[in-house]
Amino acid sequence: MAPAALSASVLFPRVGLVGRYNSPGIAEPLERLAQCLAGRGRAVTIEAETAALTPVAGYRAVPAERLGAEVDLVIVLGGDGTMLSIARLLAPFGVPLIGINQGRLGFLTDIVLTDLETMLAAMLEGEYEQEERRLLACEHRREGSAVERSLALNDVVVNRGVTGSMIECAIHIDGRFVSSLRADGLIVATPTGSTAYALSSQGPIVHPAVPAFALVPVAPHALTHRPIVVSDASELTITVLKGRDCGLHCDGQAHFRLQEGEEVRVTRAGERVQLLHPRGYDYYAMLREKLHWTETPEKLRAR
Amino acid sequence: MAPAALSASVLFPRVGLVGRYNSPGIAEPLERLAQCLAGRGRAVTIEAETAALTPVAGYRAVPAERLGAEVDLVIVLGGDGTMLSIARLLAPFGVPLIGINQGRLGFLTDIVLTDLETMLAAMLEGEYEQEERRLLACEHRREGSAVERSLALNDVVVNRGVTGSMIECAIHIDGRFVSSLRADGLIVATPTGSTAYALSSQGPIVHPAVPAFALVPVAPHALTHRPIVVSDASELTITVLKGRDCGLHCDGQAHFRLQEGEEVRVTRAGERVQLLHPRGYDYYAMLREKLHWTETPEKLRAR
Amino acid sequence: MAPAALSASVLFPRVGLVGRYNSPGIAEPLERLAQCLAGRGRAVTIEAETAALTPVAGYRAVPAERLGAEVDLVIVLGGDGTMLSIARLLAPFGVPLIGINQGRLGFLTDIVLTDLETMLAAMLEGEYEQEERRLLACEHRREGSAVERSLALNDVVVNRGVTGSMIECAIHIDGRFVSSLRADGLIVATPTGSTAYALSSQGPIVHPAVPAFALVPVAPHALTHRPIVVSDASELTITVLKGRDCGLHCDGQAHFRLQEGEEVRVTRAGERVQLLHPRGYDYYAMLREKLHWTETPEKLRAR
Amino acid sequence: MAPAALSASVLFPRVGLVGRYNSPGIAEPLERLAQCLAGRGRAVTIEAETAALTPVAGYRAVPAERLGAEVDLVIVLGGDGTMLSIARLLAPFGVPLIGINQGRLGFLTDIVLTDLETMLAAMLEGEYEQEERRLLACEHRREGSAVERSLALNDVVVNRGVTGSMIECAIHIDGRFVSSLRADGLIVATPTGSTAYALSSQGPIVHPAVPAFALVPVAPHALTHRPIVVSDASELTITVLKGRDCGLHCDGQAHFRLQEGEEVRVTRAGERVQLLHPRGYDYYAMLREKLHWTETPEKLRAR
Repeated sequence: MAPAALSASVLFPRVGLVGRYNSPGIAEPLERLAQCLAGRGRAVTIEAETAALTPVAGYRAVPAERLGAEVDLVIVLGGDGTMLSIARLLAPFGVPLIGINQGRLGFLTDIVLTDLETMLAAMLEGEYEQEERRLLACEHRREGSAVERSLALNDVVVNRGVTGSMIECAIHIDGRFVSSLRADGLIVATPTGSTAYALSSQGPIVHPAVPAFALVPVAPHALTHRPIVVSDASELTITVLKGRDCGLHCDGQAHFRLQEGEEVRVTRAGERVQLLHPRGYDYYAMLREKLHWTETPEKLRAR
Repeated sequence: MAPAALSASVLFPRVGLVGRYNSPGIAEPLERLAQCLAGRGRAVTIEAETAALTPVAGYRAVPAERLGAEVDLVIVLGGDGTMLSIARLLAPFGVPLIGINQGRLGFLTDIVLTDLETMLAAMLEGEYEQEERRLLACEHRREGSAVERSLALNDVVVNRGVTGSMIECAIHIDGRFVSSLRADGLIVATPTGSTAYALSSQGPIVHPAVPAFALVPVAPHALTHRPIVVSDASELTITVLKGRDCGLHCDGQAHFRLQEGEEVRVTRAGERVQLLHPRGYDYYAMLREKLHWTETPEKLRAR
Repeated sequence: MAPAALSASVLFPRVGLVGRYNSPGIAEPLERLAQCLAGRGRAVTIEAETAALTPVAGYRAVPAERLGAEVDLVIVLGGDGTMLSIARLLAPFGVPLIGINQGRLGFLTDIVLTDLETMLAAMLEGEYEQEERRLLACEHRREGSAVERSLALNDVVVNRGVTGSMIECAIHIDGRFVSSLRADGLIVATPTGSTAYALSSQGPIVHPAVPAFALVPVAPHALTHRPIVVSDASELTITVLKGRDCGLHCDGQAHFRLQEGEEVRVTRAGERVQLLHPRGYDYYAMLREKLHWTETPEKLRAR
Repeated sequence: MAPAALSASVLFPRVGLVGRYNSPGIAEPLERLAQCLAGRGRAVTIEAETAALTPVAGYRAVPAERLGAEVDLVIVLGGDGTMLSIARLLAPFGVPLIGINQGRLGFLTDIVLTDLETMLAAMLEGEYEQEERRLLACEHRREGSAVERSLALNDVVVNRGVTGSMIECAIHIDGRFVSSLRADGLIVATPTGSTAYALSSQGPIVHPAVPAFALVPVAPHALTHRPIVVSDASELTITVLKGRDCGLHCDGQAHFRLQEGEEVRVTRAGERVQLLHPRGYDYYAMLREKLHWTETPEKLRAR
């Protein structure tokens, strides 16, 4: 289906669509979404891999890497994992993101499919709330220079592999030695990532407005190692002291092997992710829903 | 002993001394400290209750409440508890504090008695690092108006009493409902307080440079309630929904009774505490010492 | 309504009923229950306080203390709290208990009201599973002799009061010193109590078939204090070293004040509680339901 | 050095020695130990790999696998890791074990090198306490039959590998479904293993006299999954539902790869480990030492 004539004055005239890969039921909502956008005068582009797996005729396909340069808004139809991978790609372009979840609400994909057309119509009219999320810039360093780089929206994780031995690492912050650590792993989480893997390892929930990272050890050998929340202006360095089988993970998606003596340097990235939420978005309401804090004060009173 | 003639140009010309109350061994180090200061040309004032319990002849005694208006620096000889109570009193005056510990290092009293003269001589010459710590302003509210107010440097705690029933409360942040909670208690901790009671209740360590508070539930009934770190620009309201025997505590020192329906409002105080540390002070080194993170990377390598 | 003629051969010919106190909606189900029992030839007795608050005409009322001597089975209509208080009273008599929950399933009240008649009819025909639960015998000791005694089905708790200072206590097991502890409190939980207060304080779930108690510190000052599971043949002694405002609680229902120097001695009680469950009762299914472990392997596979 | 003539009546006439592999400082204490034993009329055998790496002239060398059949007592000079590997080999033979630690005390190696001769002399005269520890029997099952078997004294662990995805598994106990679990891993620990890896993952300490295993999830995705203590008469089955990169570990030493659909079956082993401790051995004193519960009640009183 061809888009209606573009009006120069519309918000987000060019919209990119990304679907969860290998998700069978995605064709129908993806097509609905594209038609809804085209019907509202937007030029619709479909991310190439999505288009290959979920043919929706009549729209241009563009590789994910180029999407940021060619659209004004990206809508993700999938789960938090799809959001994470697209967010890292889009961050350098400043293109905002909307997340729509096929199943139950995600931490990042906060529109459910049933509400799609209504919500989206309002958002395309400017009825949205924009929220900026910080990313981590991660460098894998060997003998003093960076050999790999990646961004992370949730977390940078250093951990042991399948052979099961603990890793030993040293943590420095802004060049000062903090502690050495024997553990299954160490998570550096953004506020966004604080409700993901870090939460499973006894880390705190950190509100997105707090300019901080959480360092969360996973199964630390010493019982006195605890999560630490540090300023996001800090430079964190994790040096692998020991660990035959040690990995580095960004958002659980980009993976690298680490050798003894190598370093991981983590700082706040210059790039940021722009999330668009429906008007009335409430971070705490999302937490209540996701963490099953279901009871309202009224319900409590009634008991 | 009379002070030497005061030179107008010295740093901190008027110094107040506070000792831990009811601490038997304190007379000797207090006298040493007073002489050391007087010998360096400072006018020494002793806090009245300290003076009454630990007579050190020849110095003026002033009640703690007036100390802030009459001296330029206060030195506390005691533990973290003594520091907390004096810090709340001094905060409105902006007078800096030095903490000296009789026994082992405290989180706030970071000079040990054996190093006293050397350290102090250097600090009085300007060889110190100044650090600002934020306080909580706590209001106990009944039917819409404040009935009591207190500052807290460590934490504001709402908890159950000796009859042992859980409390039920509702938490709002900036007027938005966050969650209701059935628990032994709820701690609102500053970064300073994050290494105190909150740490015992699974709260994270929050570096003093992070502009945030930690909300830490104590023994929450629902397993999904977890510590939350929020911006210190937030206004927190805790409403007691249920609890026959409920208390409000500021720094574990100022205590109030709470009734059902009453509120506790917590914000960042306008007042701040100025701590002076010896040159080279290292927050992480202090944590290592206090939490027994004893191993350096070098020691680890050697194994 | 008069009971049908009693047949000597029926199971549980005399049945006592206990309702949750102060529960408004209880009259109707209580009457239904009494009629159901009478219709099946059982002599129905109503616990006196229940009868006073919820008049159900035509049945004999007997004080809770005498119920154990006069009936063959007690049915509790209420929550886990009501079960606990009746279980302690019945334990010396060996009379079995059935728990029916008005609202959502409890850990101990595992029949829901909607299933009442069907379930009960089957159970009265012998279609039940009997499970024995151990109790704690708790002695409050002063200067070497017991001043108070209580049983506990869930837990014995020593904790601080509303003034908020930590307690300090020493723990001995079988006369051997284990540790001293500075904390909000210390819980000694049976397997039954391991899913109650102890679970909120990071204690493990202990299956009822394990002959053990869990010692669970509440908010311990030292981070290395952890829950300990010990043989239920152990004699535990908790000595209050410090604590101006310290309480002793059995099942959160029987409360005593503790003074410095006093001891709490906890052993396995000789008495036991007999719980009757519907045929097919599954402890793990109950845990899944209560703790929201909702996903079955099949559901997981389908994703 | 040749052993003195053997007296038939001595306790433990044939003693095997095992040293920590690759430990440089071990030759001297090993030789001292051998001489001490030979001087007391014992026939000394050195485990073959120890002998190869640490030549101590004049003693017979026997492979670890045959040691159990040829000696009456084995003394391990090393850490807890060496004890674990030898204990699994010796368990089928019922030969008792003594553990001597070169460095600081271990959980299993409870004699320090400095006390060696005195302690050992007394123990060889019968001045010891014997303690039996249970092992886990672990079967790796594929399509209904066991493909690998191993014993474990500490723990059986199923966990994810270096690619970092969570595993999903289903847990059954005695054929009943308990729960599915998405996590980094799942630990089944004996009481002996409860102070090892399981403790780092929030598991409870389980006293060796408690006939139970602890199931401890590592970084579980759902916050309501908690450690469970079950009877050691239980049969546990862990089925891998998902996990591309999943491993099975016994005592962190025997490693196997697991595929989706495969099972791990864990039961109490028929074999047992016999540990000999010096007279006066105190499990709780060892815990205090290892976990830095340093304060005695007397010290607390003195404050």
